[in-house]
Amino acid sequence: MALLTGDEYVESLKALSPEVYIRGQRVDKVWDHPLLHQTVNHIRANFDRAADPANGGKYTVRSPLTGEDVARVQMHIQASMDDVLTKARLTREISSQQICSGCMSNMLSVTWAMVHDVDQAHGTDYHSRFRDYVAGLQKGGKVIAWGMMDPKGNRKLRPHQQDPPTDLRVVEQKPDGIVVSGAKVHTTFGPAAHEFVAVPCRALGPEDKDFAVSFAVPIDTPGLKLIARPSPGPARQTEMESPLSSKFLGVEAMSIFDNVFVPWERVFMCGQWQQAGNLPLYFASLHRQSKCACSAGHADLFAGAAALVARANGLSENSGHIREKITDMIMAAETAFGCAMGAAVEGQIHPSGVFMPNASIANCGLNHIRSTLGDHLAALQDIGGGLVTTMPTEADWQNPALRPYIERHLAAGPGYSTEDRLRALNLCQDLAASRLTGTILGFTVNAAGSSETNRLVARVMYDLESRINMAKDLAGITSRA
Amino acid sequence: MALLTGDEYVESLKALSPEVYIRGQRVDKVWDHPLLHQTVNHIRANFDRAADPANGGKYTVRSPLTGEDVARVQMHIQASMDDVLTKARLTREISSQQICSGCMSNMLSVTWAMVHDVDQAHGTDYHSRFRDYVAGLQKGGKVIAWGMMDPKGNRKLRPHQQDPPTDLRVVEQKPDGIVVSGAKVHTTFGPAAHEFVAVPCRALGPEDKDFAVSFAVPIDTPGLKLIARPSPGPARQTEMESPLSSKFLGVEAMSIFDNVFVPWERVFMCGQWQQAGNLPLYFASLHRQSKCACSAGHADLFAGAAALVARANGLSENSGHIREKITDMIMAAETAFGCAMGAAVEGQIHPSGVFMPNASIANCGLNHIRSTLGDHLAALQDIGGGLVTTMPTEADWQNPALRPYIERHLAAGPGYSTEDRLRALNLCQDLAASRLTGTILGFTVNAAGSSETNRLVARVMYDLESRINMAKDLAGITSRA
Amino acid sequence: MALLTGDEYVESLKALSPEVYIRGQRVDKVWDHPLLHQTVNHIRANFDRAADPANGGKYTVRSPLTGEDVARVQMHIQASMDDVLTKARLTREISSQQICSGCMSNMLSVTWAMVHDVDQAHGTDYHSRFRDYVAGLQKGGKVIAWGMMDPKGNRKLRPHQQDPPTDLRVVEQKPDGIVVSGAKVHTTFGPAAHEFVAVPCRALGPEDKDFAVSFAVPIDTPGLKLIARPSPGPARQTEMESPLSSKFLGVEAMSIFDNVFVPWERVFMCGQWQQAGNLPLYFASLHRQSKCACSAGHADLFAGAAALVARANGLSENSGHIREKITDMIMAAETAFGCAMGAAVEGQIHPSGVFMPNASIANCGLNHIRSTLGDHLAALQDIGGGLVTTMPTEADWQNPALRPYIERHLAAGPGYSTEDRLRALNLCQDLAASRLTGTILGFTVNAAGSSETNRLVARVMYDLESRINMAKDLAGITSRA
Amino acid sequence: MALLTGDEYVESLKALSPEVYIRGQRVDKVWDHPLLHQTVNHIRANFDRAADPANGGKYTVRSPLTGEDVARVQMHIQASMDDVLTKARLTREISSQQICSGCMSNMLSVTWAMVHDVDQAHGTDYHSRFRDYVAGLQKGGKVIAWGMMDPKGNRKLRPHQQDPPTDLRVVEQKPDGIVVSGAKVHTTFGPAAHEFVAVPCRALGPEDKDFAVSFAVPIDTPGLKLIARPSPGPARQTEMESPLSSKFLGVEAMSIFDNVFVPWERVFMCGQWQQAGNLPLYFASLHRQSKCACSAGHADLFAGAAALVARANGLSENSGHIREKITDMIMAAETAFGCAMGAAVEGQIHPSGVFMPNASIANCGLNHIRSTLGDHLAALQDIGGGLVTTMPTEADWQNPALRPYIERHLAAGPGYSTEDRLRALNLCQDLAASRLTGTILGFTVNAAGSSETNRLVARVMYDLESRINMAKDLAGITSRA
Repeated sequence: MALLTGDEYVESLKALSPEVYIRGQRVDKVWDHPLLHQTVNHIRANFDRAADPANGGKYTVRSPLTGEDVARVQMHIQASMDDVLTKARLTREISSQQICSGCMSNMLSVTWAMVHDVDQAHGTDYHSRFRDYVAGLQKGGKVIAWGMMDPKGNRKLRPHQQDPPTDLRVVEQKPDGIVVSGAKVHTTFGPAAHEFVAVPCRALGPEDKDFAVSFAVPIDTPGLKLIARPSPGPARQTEMESPLSSKFLGVEAMSIFDNVFVPWERVFMCGQWQQAGNLPLYFASLHRQSKCACSAGHADLFAGAAALVARANGLSENSGHIREKITDMIMAAETAFGCAMGAAVEGQIHPSGVFMPNASIANCGLNHIRSTLGDHLAALQDIGGGLVTTMPTEADWQNPALRPYIERHLAAGPGYSTEDRLRALNLCQDLAASRLTGTILGFTVNAAGSSETNRLVARVMYDLESRINMAKDLAGITSRA
Repeated sequence: MALLTGDEYVESLKALSPEVYIRGQRVDKVWDHPLLHQTVNHIRANFDRAADPANGGKYTVRSPLTGEDVARVQMHIQASMDDVLTKARLTREISSQQICSGCMSNMLSVTWAMVHDVDQAHGTDYHSRFRDYVAGLQKGGKVIAWGMMDPKGNRKLRPHQQDPPTDLRVVEQKPDGIVVSGAKVHTTFGPAAHEFVAVPCRALGPEDKDFAVSFAVPIDTPGLKLIARPSPGPARQTEMESPLSSKFLGVEAMSIFDNVFVPWERVFMCGQWQQAGNLPLYFASLHRQSKCACSAGHADLFAGAAALVARANGLSENSGHIREKITDMIMAAETAFGCAMGAAVEGQIHPSGVFMPNASIANCGLNHIRSTLGDHLAALQDIGGGLVTTMPTEADWQNPALRPYIERHLAAGPGYSTEDRLRALNLCQDLAASRLTGTILGFTVNAAGSSETNRLVARVMYDLESRINMAKDLAGITSRA
Repeated sequence: MALLTGDEYVESLKALSPEVYIRGQRVDKVWDHPLLHQTVNHIRANFDRAADPANGGKYTVRSPLTGEDVARVQMHIQASMDDVLTKARLTREISSQQICSGCMSNMLSVTWAMVHDVDQAHGTDYHSRFRDYVAGLQKGGKVIAWGMMDPKGNRKLRPHQQDPPTDLRVVEQKPDGIVVSGAKVHTTFGPAAHEFVAVPCRALGPEDKDFAVSFAVPIDTPGLKLIARPSPGPARQTEMESPLSSKFLGVEAMSIFDNVFVPWERVFMCGQWQQAGNLPLYFASLHRQSKCACSAGHADLFAGAAALVARANGLSENSGHIREKITDMIMAAETAFGCAMGAAVEGQIHPSGVFMPNASIANCGLNHIRSTLGDHLAALQDIGGGLVTTMPTEADWQNPALRPYIERHLAAGPGYSTEDRLRALNLCQDLAASRLTGTILGFTVNAAGSSETNRLVARVMYDLESRINMAKDLAGITSRA
Repeated sequence: MALLTGDEYVESLKALSPEVYIRGQRVDKVWDHPLLHQTVNHIRANFDRAADPANGGKYTVRSPLTGEDVARVQMHIQASMDDVLTKARLTREISSQQICSGCMSNMLSVTWAMVHDVDQAHGTDYHSRFRDYVAGLQKGGKVIAWGMMDPKGNRKLRPHQQDPPTDLRVVEQKPDGIVVSGAKVHTTFGPAAHEFVAVPCRALGPEDKDFAVSFAVPIDTPGLKLIARPSPGPARQTEMESPLSSKFLGVEAMSIFDNVFVPWERVFMCGQWQQAGNLPLYFASLHRQSKCACSAGHADLFAGAAALVARANGLSENSGHIREKITDMIMAAETAFGCAMGAAVEGQIHPSGVFMPNASIANCGLNHIRSTLGDHLAALQDIGGGLVTTMPTEADWQNPALRPYIERHLAAGPGYSTEDRLRALNLCQDLAASRLTGTILGFTVNAAGSSETNRLVARVMYDLESRINMAKDLAGITSRA
């Protein structure tokens, strides 16, 4: 049962009636809205990949929680170095095909560790609830929307100082549950999920304890509103024009909680401000290691698209600057992937059983590849040529009066038809000259934390003092200052 | 008469009926089509800027051809170092406001020089025709579409070897004129122009002499078809969401010539293959110097937008990494602008009277700033934050049921309303996460020639042998190898 | 016996009388020559590190060949992922203290694999000889000089086409052995070694079979001449001025073989040109993985020295640009080290039993850190300040008439004396403004192969075709071209 | 008389007896000391260049102060845009031959402007004294040592707070002059100068007024002690080995003033703390513009050396990565030189008559080229190959027993002898793998102010507020915050 097919997933959405808005309008049927097409399709592809027997279990793993196979990248709590290595390889592969691998297992794993910490520190019993909750997700083949980032309002004030409060918090504790209000931002794919899981996004002080809250609710819980931003792909149906963004990637949403009730069995933290900072800490290690592999997949996709358009243009991927630019893409991919693997080797087991990669290596590898992305996008346009932004559109090609002109004047390289060439150019356009470009850039720059946070992690984790002492020894300095 | 207002320009379009296609459909009224709105508006703004008496002649210059004031950036043949310096300053300013300054004077100037070369070499009399033609443009306040780049077909074959031919060429010479067929690509703003000017795009051999052709025709000449690609901005009317791309930048087109007749008085070159290569040579010098200033303007815009969104987010443009990233934008702008000015100083007068900037400095300055663009776009998203790609849309904001939630949870920094913040974020989105992003990247990467051509010019113009000899002298080597 | 102390090593040199030249003069006593002081001391330190019981076996490993402990980095054939991970950690540590870890085990391991390949392909029995030879080295605690790179003469000709031949080759085969002539370049530390091991440096064709030769000879074998270039450190004794280069790093030599006889039991390859290219192939994988860790150690040293001089100058390592530059050093180190570990994880066992790291990751990680070195050296001078190149010398400080002036005017930051500050500045000077700087740069740029070879390996190992096919699938292209 | 020959200059040194120390020893004859050989020779070359009639006045200009020709780069107060452009061209050329052009005219020009400011603000009469002083230098063909940078002691304290004081200051005012004590650091070529000119190095407050002092004294004034650091070149005579550093570049010194008396007619500022900051301000504009051209010359030298060694190695400067790396050098040179010229065009006349280049462009251009230097040095070693750091030395080559081996095994490319190749390699070694490397790096990183100061100038001079307002207008924001 855990491995739903894509169709079963879509069918399951019909049982839910979340309060979703898009372009200001309330969405009636999530599974059948032109601006949610890509969102639903993206998740559907993940289900099909795991469920397809032809894949021979490549994308699944036997869950110790349920004894059943579950989708590794979406569902499994990572518990060993091998788990981490295997997931990184799959993440790279899937991301090279649809940009985002839907790595919700990362979110579940970091929450797993933080909730365990809460229990250890406070003698509470949240972790068994969370374990049961994850087991339920795995059994039901559920998709979660992840609510981590608070809007934060005025950046110079702490959460409890915001007036009125902007961030998600407990507003009432009742015998049977809690009531929460506030907002979370950056809820990727949220409208097409079954569940919403909330966690804190930063270290908190005692006055912020109401903001130290983690819980899960069904996506259509009363009071939960999702204001969604259209996915980067087109609303209209196209066949050639946006090959990737017409099928994949989805909406981002701002999630509003207006006095939402959560029963205690779905509460995983409530007031333990001391552990709130652990969540982003584990996220910085575990998710960024994963993102090294994810970004490597993007570079793989760029390399393939660049070489393809070179050929379709009648040039070789092995000549001059084209070769060098593709080599740069390859090397960025391999360096980031190498760091993903290296971070796994240098990682360790968290007391909760989650395997935590080495945060320093993961952040350094990620920072390296993210700093190359702008160059790769530019290279795709460079190799594709000016036509990437000036070629006729699909509708022109479909017009029989125009097609002969286009066919003739945009003749392609050996072995390629003009239509092939237009398709290759459109792939470059989709990646490097469309709204998707902005999404890819956003995924690279801001998702999983910005470059500044990478630098901070590297700096904080590094034992500089021991290197200073080594330098003193070499120089013959005895000062201890 | 030469300085039309924007309204007069729009009115003038009504007298023309060019054969324009967009998304596969024939366009009826260029001046009133939702997908040509930005194109027309962009040009209109250029007219208004020059014609507005409040600008005190800042954007105009007295043309020696007509004795009347003309728009400097669009119309004037540059004839002195001061012309070049002044135009570069204006280009930087205008490009910082609407990305593209409409620098058609560059195209006219390089054609001016090449046509002069043709006459000098062949004893022909094309240059007086071209002079008259330019004077006519200036008197009439005409906009030209520029057709330089041929589609080139199979890159490994010369123009005359393409079968069937892809590039624009003379197919018949008649007593009263010539007949041309073929295509030009990358016709920016073409549908909203009055005239089409064609020039060769590369060095040609004797077998390619039919491709050595330059001429002008009215935009609605029979047989000329423009297949336009929608501008990067939205088709629907928006107020907040795409502040720049909803107003400026326009369509790109592929221009088809299907047996178009050109009377001799509008032919400026016909068969003189020896001079064809001079056009791209002069273009590489003159237009790239201009583009240094243009790109500097883009970096100015990025710097302003980045500092604005930092403030609207409640942060300071002077703190930490934000300051450093804005400083990088500033330095890219100043370096490119410095090279624009330096290329002017090191330039010289072409025998035709056109002032040619130093090509090496211009190409090096341009290559420097273009290599930084990816970083600036990433920095805009970084400083803007994740909301750049995840914030609610304008329609959500206009929905009274949603606005209070957005208002509260996306509260802005001191002195800014939530709406201000959304507007600042939308400016960043328009620049760094929209189809406009792809256009800006395309302008940077491919327009006016790619980075490889910059490198080629720098290498070819450099006297390496003299530096090798200097190194030999220093090292005490007498070998002449 | 295998773990000699440093003193025992020096003593052992007295039994050898190699033909060594330095600055044109024949060296009499290698162990007592002012220009070989650092060379001998560098190796001595490696012996002491392994032999010192206080290190608790950290630097040793039980050799399966001898059943005795041997120095891991210098002697052990790496046979497992753990071997690789452990060696990488040690290499980073040692290189951070003396730049070069003396990683001769890399050279022995790649030769081990190639010789095994020879036997597999040709049914020969060289590998048992090499095994015995390595066991003998391990038992005797011998140091090898490594001769891989041939001079190559005219780069456009193959080895057998050089006239006269420049590269090392077999000139005669005799019943009891072979006679070799030619040269090897870049023999690091050679004069202070006990043995010389020669291997081929590139793929060879059948006509080049005489150049397909591998063997070992005692360093003082008749006919072997070493022309050594002084180490980067000073010849005169200094205490403060060159803290690192006065103690460590050594001579490079050009090794001439003038009809040198090698008995068959010390020949490991003779004419099997088909396997010659395997040596550089394995070297590119195994040694470059090691060099990632080595370069990480250099960045660690730079980070420590930079933070130290900041403090000694009265500034903090945590302020402004100093912090950012040190963070860059840290991130370069962690990225390279991460790739070293990742390359180990993605490696595999060669049939000979040698564990081969993943070459692509190793080359990409190395290329990344090597591309940052110039910036780090510049940063050391930047943080140190102008005094790094303008401060008074040690002799000035020792002059009692000058010291009070220096003491007063070069007062240091809190907790540091002027002498401490001079020492910290001198460490920066030694690293970033001395002949050692050139050596470090050379180690980074050319040792273990240049950046171009890194790029080549990454390109060749990458499955680009599969990514092109993926791009075709996404774009909807069926062409197989 | 103003244009001394090199020999006349050396002769003139014999009349002086400065108190110079080098390696702790008092120097007796500056003109005849092995460690001052390069220092004297460097200056001698500047004299010969200007005095040589064969140069047709290229390096001289008629001084308005004396009516006589003076060396432009060393002596002339720059008074027009043409002066700046001409000097930049000469600076680039000379720096490409001997690294440092001896641009003392920059120092005189900025002092000229600051002293003028003092008079304007305080009604004093220092400027006429300085004018006379400069006229005297020009008439006598005098060389100045420039003392600008104070040691600064504890960086967190102001000059008057240092205890004891470290910086140069007035300790007594007398009827006939002032007495000064303290130190200046980074006195380049000081021991071989005739005069010492001191100026303040930073903005000062009223309590620091004693440090606001500018004056000139003969180099052998009692109480002035120069502690010199040997030049980067060798002390021993070589012919091949250090082709550049054996002839050019010289000592750096720390200059101690121990109660030195200065008569009023040689005092140019005394206590006017308000104008002290103008000196570094003008320096940041004028000297950095000059340094753009100087650094361009270095890149020219690197390009020539790289192409030469490629040829001598038997490769072409036009193949593969060699071509790209040389192109990078060329482009760095042209970009910096372009900014030097652009800064001149955008400059303006200071009220004192000095032409001040645009500081923003100058700093941006300088920062660009300085950020490329590490890469160029690495490229020189890369193109030269490992032999740059491992080849035999000159003495080996001179040994008849070794030469035949070297001759044969280090055979060179077509048209080059082995000796030619060694010479080319030695030039690379001198530039990229010697103590000179550290000096070049130091000149690039720290001389004329560090990269951080470039960034500061660019930031401070930029009108960011106007760009923020433009962004507000585009976005439709009316907030004035």
